[in-house]
Amino acid sequence: MRHLVKESTEPYAVGVVDVFPWDKFSLGHRLPFGAQWYTLPPNATSKQDCHPEVELSIVVHGTASVEASGQITDVGTGEVFLLDSGEAHVIHNRSGNASLLVFTTFWMPPEDSPDSGTAGGEEAEAAMAGETRT
Amino acid sequence: MRHLVKESTEPYAVGVVDVFPWDKFSLGHRLPFGAQWYTLPPNATSKQDCHPEVELSIVVHGTASVEASGQITDVGTGEVFLLDSGEAHVIHNRSGNASLLVFTTFWMPPEDSPDSGTAGGEEAEAAMAGETRT
Repeated sequence: MRHLVKESTEPYAVGVVDVFPWDKFSLGHRLPFGAQWYTLPPNATSKQDCHPEVELSIVVHGTASVEASGQITDVGTGEVFLLDSGEAHVIHNRSGNASLLVFTTFWMPPEDSPDSGTAGGEEAEAAMAGETRT
Repeated sequence: MRHLVKESTEPYAVGVVDVFPWDKFSLGHRLPFGAQWYTLPPNATSKQDCHPEVELSIVVHGTASVEASGQITDVGTGEVFLLDSGEAHVIHNRSGNASLLVFTTFWMPPEDSPDSGTAGGEEAEAAMAGETRT
């Protein structure tokens, strides 16, 4: 078993976001995804991010207000959000006093996947699952 | 963007553990791993689990006392633990009042990977990363 904590990483800042990368754990070949933690202080907003990797993130502390595809969705502690390849997103921490901690995983979609294009095309799945889609 | 919450799943019990599976989200083909949440009440211990999938888990609420390879490691909120393929493990919630919530991901290791055997063989990596290894 390995025990991985963000205090063992070498964090860097992207605007108001502190990123805790996994490079130091030398796990690249063992995991089918990259991973990192990031934090936002209260009343802070990230820069817009957009990348070809699909991204699955879980909120560990606070609430992430995720702005993507023209809507803002509040994702609470313990909840997960999934961003498509090429889906631009901004993360807001709208709390006045609680910091935000997110653990995120990301990977390149297979080339023959619908995900390898831009965002979209999942409406039927979301409807089947009866979940909130933004 | 999709917003995934455990309240949308159909949970089932494995002893004292409540498992919130991702089947209903129909994401199997989009993610390179399976995922689920699970909870343990205070003062509870899971049955021993052992499976060929590698498992990466993050503690979202409480502290998981992870028993594996002859040791127990306390993994706090926001911290991650990685279990090898075939590494037997038991999860304890030793708190008298706090529930435990874990988000876990799992995948089969590539057949030519050292992970496809039983546990072990990572000591050098862990030493390089300067981290706690149990």
